[in-house]
Amino acid sequence: MTSEQASASPLPARPDARPAALRPLWVARGIAVVGASDRAGAVGRLPVQFLQRYGYTGGIYPVRPDGAPVAGLTSYPSVEEAARAGEVDVAMVMVAADKVVAAVQDCAAAGVGVVIVCSSGFAETGPAGAALQDELVRVAGELGVRVLGPNCIGTVGTATGQVSSFSPLFSGASTQLVPGGIGFVSQSGALGYGAVSLAFERGLGLGWVVNTGNEADIGATEVMAALAEEQQPRCTGLLGYAESLGDLSSLARVTASGVPVAMLKAGRSDAGARAAASHTGALATGDKVVDAALRRAGVVRVDDVEELLDVGDVMVLVPLVQDRQVGSDGVPGRAPGAPLRQPGGARLRRIAVVTTSGGSGILAADAIEARGLELAALADDTLADLDQIVPAYGSTANPVDVTASVMSNPDLFDQALTTIAQDPGVDAIVACFCVLTGSDVDAVVQALARVRERTGVPVVVTRTGADHLAPDAAATMRAAGLPVYPTPARAVRAVAALAQFVQAGSRAGGNDRDQPAGHAPPDLWAHTDESSLKQALAGAGLPVPVGRLVSDRDDALAAVEQAGGQAVFKAVVPGLLHKSEAGGVVLDVTSERAAEVYDRLGALRGPDGSAGQVLVEEMVPPGVEVLVGSADTPLGRILTVGVGGVLTEVVADVALRLLPIDRQDVEEMVDETRLRLLLAGARGRPPADRAALVDTIAALADLAATLPAGAELDLNPITVLAEGDGVRILDAALALADEED
Amino acid sequence: MTSEQASASPLPARPDARPAALRPLWVARGIAVVGASDRAGAVGRLPVQFLQRYGYTGGIYPVRPDGAPVAGLTSYPSVEEAARAGEVDVAMVMVAADKVVAAVQDCAAAGVGVVIVCSSGFAETGPAGAALQDELVRVAGELGVRVLGPNCIGTVGTATGQVSSFSPLFSGASTQLVPGGIGFVSQSGALGYGAVSLAFERGLGLGWVVNTGNEADIGATEVMAALAEEQQPRCTGLLGYAESLGDLSSLARVTASGVPVAMLKAGRSDAGARAAASHTGALATGDKVVDAALRRAGVVRVDDVEELLDVGDVMVLVPLVQDRQVGSDGVPGRAPGAPLRQPGGARLRRIAVVTTSGGSGILAADAIEARGLELAALADDTLADLDQIVPAYGSTANPVDVTASVMSNPDLFDQALTTIAQDPGVDAIVACFCVLTGSDVDAVVQALARVRERTGVPVVVTRTGADHLAPDAAATMRAAGLPVYPTPARAVRAVAALAQFVQAGSRAGGNDRDQPAGHAPPDLWAHTDESSLKQALAGAGLPVPVGRLVSDRDDALAAVEQAGGQAVFKAVVPGLLHKSEAGGVVLDVTSERAAEVYDRLGALRGPDGSAGQVLVEEMVPPGVEVLVGSADTPLGRILTVGVGGVLTEVVADVALRLLPIDRQDVEEMVDETRLRLLLAGARGRPPADRAALVDTIAALADLAATLPAGAELDLNPITVLAEGDGVRILDAALALADEED
Repeated sequence: MTSEQASASPLPARPDARPAALRPLWVARGIAVVGASDRAGAVGRLPVQFLQRYGYTGGIYPVRPDGAPVAGLTSYPSVEEAARAGEVDVAMVMVAADKVVAAVQDCAAAGVGVVIVCSSGFAETGPAGAALQDELVRVAGELGVRVLGPNCIGTVGTATGQVSSFSPLFSGASTQLVPGGIGFVSQSGALGYGAVSLAFERGLGLGWVVNTGNEADIGATEVMAALAEEQQPRCTGLLGYAESLGDLSSLARVTASGVPVAMLKAGRSDAGARAAASHTGALATGDKVVDAALRRAGVVRVDDVEELLDVGDVMVLVPLVQDRQVGSDGVPGRAPGAPLRQPGGARLRRIAVVTTSGGSGILAADAIEARGLELAALADDTLADLDQIVPAYGSTANPVDVTASVMSNPDLFDQALTTIAQDPGVDAIVACFCVLTGSDVDAVVQALARVRERTGVPVVVTRTGADHLAPDAAATMRAAGLPVYPTPARAVRAVAALAQFVQAGSRAGGNDRDQPAGHAPPDLWAHTDESSLKQALAGAGLPVPVGRLVSDRDDALAAVEQAGGQAVFKAVVPGLLHKSEAGGVVLDVTSERAAEVYDRLGALRGPDGSAGQVLVEEMVPPGVEVLVGSADTPLGRILTVGVGGVLTEVVADVALRLLPIDRQDVEEMVDETRLRLLLAGARGRPPADRAALVDTIAALADLAATLPAGAELDLNPITVLAEGDGVRILDAALALADEED
Repeated sequence: MTSEQASASPLPARPDARPAALRPLWVARGIAVVGASDRAGAVGRLPVQFLQRYGYTGGIYPVRPDGAPVAGLTSYPSVEEAARAGEVDVAMVMVAADKVVAAVQDCAAAGVGVVIVCSSGFAETGPAGAALQDELVRVAGELGVRVLGPNCIGTVGTATGQVSSFSPLFSGASTQLVPGGIGFVSQSGALGYGAVSLAFERGLGLGWVVNTGNEADIGATEVMAALAEEQQPRCTGLLGYAESLGDLSSLARVTASGVPVAMLKAGRSDAGARAAASHTGALATGDKVVDAALRRAGVVRVDDVEELLDVGDVMVLVPLVQDRQVGSDGVPGRAPGAPLRQPGGARLRRIAVVTTSGGSGILAADAIEARGLELAALADDTLADLDQIVPAYGSTANPVDVTASVMSNPDLFDQALTTIAQDPGVDAIVACFCVLTGSDVDAVVQALARVRERTGVPVVVTRTGADHLAPDAAATMRAAGLPVYPTPARAVRAVAALAQFVQAGSRAGGNDRDQPAGHAPPDLWAHTDESSLKQALAGAGLPVPVGRLVSDRDDALAAVEQAGGQAVFKAVVPGLLHKSEAGGVVLDVTSERAAEVYDRLGALRGPDGSAGQVLVEEMVPPGVEVLVGSADTPLGRILTVGVGGVLTEVVADVALRLLPIDRQDVEEMVDETRLRLLLAGARGRPPADRAALVDTIAALADLAATLPAGAELDLNPITVLAEGDGVRILDAALALADEED
């Protein structure tokens, strides 16, 4: 369905209790405005005025102590009184901060389940405000009232004209609501409504707008989940702006709903991330964890408001792509009855560029490569057919330059497009134009829309020319379901987001990564020194070098001989974290040196002066060195996999996932890093045992998922030997996060 | 000067002979249109019509065989005839391809020095067209006529209404020329005029527009150089779109002019670059060479048409920043008489963000970090002063959230801005707003403009809200010299470009890298095998391991003992390029193994069956492995520096420059790569001898500059030992480029 179809939304009855809690934020039967004012320009008058202006059909109940009329409406001394006059589902609270708790109590007495607290003066102002906010949350929680805000600008349901907001956007003489299927949820008020104004301006229809402000109770992700679940199938996509990301269970609900989501998560550079990045050891920054969480949820992350809206525009194509079944022979065909999500089925990667400008075609090709997509290789049949249509001064190879003469002939242009769209190697078309004048547009749009309709191949348009040359072009294309962007780079960026949605949808079916079954995991946490930790890992079937703790010189010598006359000696001293730097690791120890090295390592002391032991292990031949780590984060436990050994900090190349993960995730993590090349064999070296590495990491991920809060596991290096020879975990450490600092 | 001031351009006399050749492309006294037509809609009628419509005051001379009038003007049977009627400086040639040469001869006879060949049917259509194009260039060259095109859409000089173009842009009923100080030069016609339409639409004034088409004779960079030299000081910036970059001497002329230049060089993903990138060995792609060339020329490279125009908008601030002298105490002050370019003086890196939206501030901070700029650390005095102005619910730390209440009070807003701008740690201000309504705008703009004027600190504005809410805001800000962008990311991207212009300008003064003086370089080319090449390098004072060729077993043994009882044996066999993979390098050879290893390596044969010799070298201890290479490219000889040894392909981290370079360039190259960290000492290893490496690379760069065309030098690894121990060139190869394939 297009976003336009979603606009005709009546006021249906509440479906069930749970989602209904938030529903009045966008579909209320009646709205109380607590702190309403009749003074022109007063903030407390704006929502009343806006609800009237934008045609809200529910009841509007100004609440003010003196009961004087507001904007011509009767007012009430309390929400409770208002609720006697009609149905009140939601209240906007616009009184001074110190009066907000009383207002919420009034709402509870009136049976209002959710309040929009616009008032500021809470956590954003300092400790006193934060205490007031805690009190608000506590009281509301006890009364069973949900709180949006405080310090927020309100909400909008466009289909019903519900502008329960005081944003200056709605004062604009030229402002009109543009209803549609996209929900827009923003933690920031000013930026959020600025973005809404830009969405309306470009014609991107929004069904629901929610500003969450301080998020004392209701967060952006919970709102998204409620919209996705409760407004299906009207809600065809969600756009969000967030500065924090606390609530992963809500994100999982959004994922389960199948509604595509894009999010602008700001603060990539917050002080914490900066501090962490300033010393080379900090490979897993907070922002990488956010990336992992959004990726897990199938959310497309963007970096800019403009990109957020660009991705919103392409969401209209998600159902089209998901409905387009790719058969086993690779030939696409329509499958109207196919399920919405086909695990492993739908994909979108190979892009055909159709253009009348060589320059635009090259820029599109550049962007396609930069975004990890492919320029489709057209089939010989396609090229032969195009040769019959495209003049000699055009180009039939992708990017296909059909020339202006073909574009100006609707039949020929249609024929060329159809030929390209029917090529089984084409997943999507990017059509690039420059100066489009009035007369060009209609024929072009009709041809593009027909091809989309006939073949199910998504089409995205680039128009690198001034709007005023064909002022209706953008609207015409939008009405035809053709997202249009000013440059090839922006169009391709949107197509890449579309590809991510399709991929996330494909995987969603088989994406329920369960906790590992099988035998009970060893209690890793009981083993904090290297030697016993390695024994525990070995007990779990994981490959560690053969070795043992030795207690004297003779024992050390015997251990060397047992290891084949050459061994590794390691000091195992409580609290000695950087033992290599402290001289606590000696390689290539032969029988002759055993006693001397034993003495030296045995003499090492920990920070508290305590003595340790010496671990003697077999020598492991050189191989590819990998690091695997696991740590606890506010968003959950993560696993990192990357280039290890002495190059750890220099190459600084790790992949990161929230646990749990499965074998496919591990394969992807390896492929994301330079490990892919290292394992394949660099500079003539033989390929390493990638399969054994993946097995080991998958098993480690399962074990790590059982670690207690705060525990950090660090396995570096894990040496990967030649194919068939497996891997060895050479070093292992387990600590509480605090111990490392 | 602002772009608006540049618009009042009369028709001055020709300054001198050389630039005058191209000058009529934008300031002609009279224009002949060869192939003019009177038929409505005919391509041959459009330029005549456009010249009339846009108020061209020079002579318009339609040329057509029958002499019939065109658009009400007298026509002439030839350019020669037209030139008898008035002054003709330039001719547009719009006849069929096979008649173009004759038209050029006619132009030459008329004394016309430059022609705009719009006709297509040349190199873009295949071999026959290419031959015709060669003939055109040959004839024009003999006649002393310069050719723009063929296959181009023409040129525009906006100040004089000279629309010598047939772009459909100029047919648009609402199209108006927007004069200004920026020159726009595009190889692509459709995309170029599309971008011009977008520039006009946003109010970015263009003084000169040139489409170079097939570039058979005149290329985009030559046009840029001519504009920069001839239109100074009117020309305040140049924007270019190019698909190839052949003419570095013109780029150097642009650099010397001091006019800031931004270029969209398309084809990052062209087939060649793709093929090269597909095998890991290809570290130095063609695109990296383009980057190096543009960097050398101080050109800001962009990736998108929108970014090109965004950078065009910020060019107005370049003189402001260059005029703002930073004194030795770091306190900025106005220095009106200061020279335009101060080597090492001007810089722009520390950005203050002033906002009324916390969200915009965070997004700006993210973008500042992502673009390699810094969020300015405000001085204690500044923070104390701001504390007096900004309410508690705002924020005085950068990003400074002044709050809407301060913004709505012009005096307070002005005071806050001035305080920030006067902080010596602030190089530029990004002011971020969201929904701006009519009444907000004027006060905001006045305050921003005043601060800019008073302190000389450049200000860039972000307005993340719909235009229609304050339709005149964009023009008001532009008139006040305040570039405005829809999102913080785009504003910061523009500021980063501004910083690049300033840096390029700073370095321009001391940027004349001469060929090395000193003693004559050794003739490296005479030494193609490793042993003699190393001897030549040693002769030039460069550090190679001690070693010698041995001729028999006894000699090999003696060499090992000479090397201290342990040596490296290397096969030196003509044509054996990958000798490590062929087993031609053996480390740790002791006296006992000398004979056996000698025999084995001596038995290796080259591809043509020829035998080689064995080189015995001292063992060099492990260190940081570096690669240095030099190759010839169409843009000149390059030097690459990066992580070497077995990690070369895996880490794939090299910096690249066109030669010649100086020591400062080498330092920058090292810092651009992971060598910076490796040399500083990773994982507790001691720092390596960076100074010796830089010396060696600088000397190698000088040597490489003397290599003959096509020669490729490959030094990998160069081992960098601990500080004070210097470096050793462990492997060296020199070949013709073709031999490697």
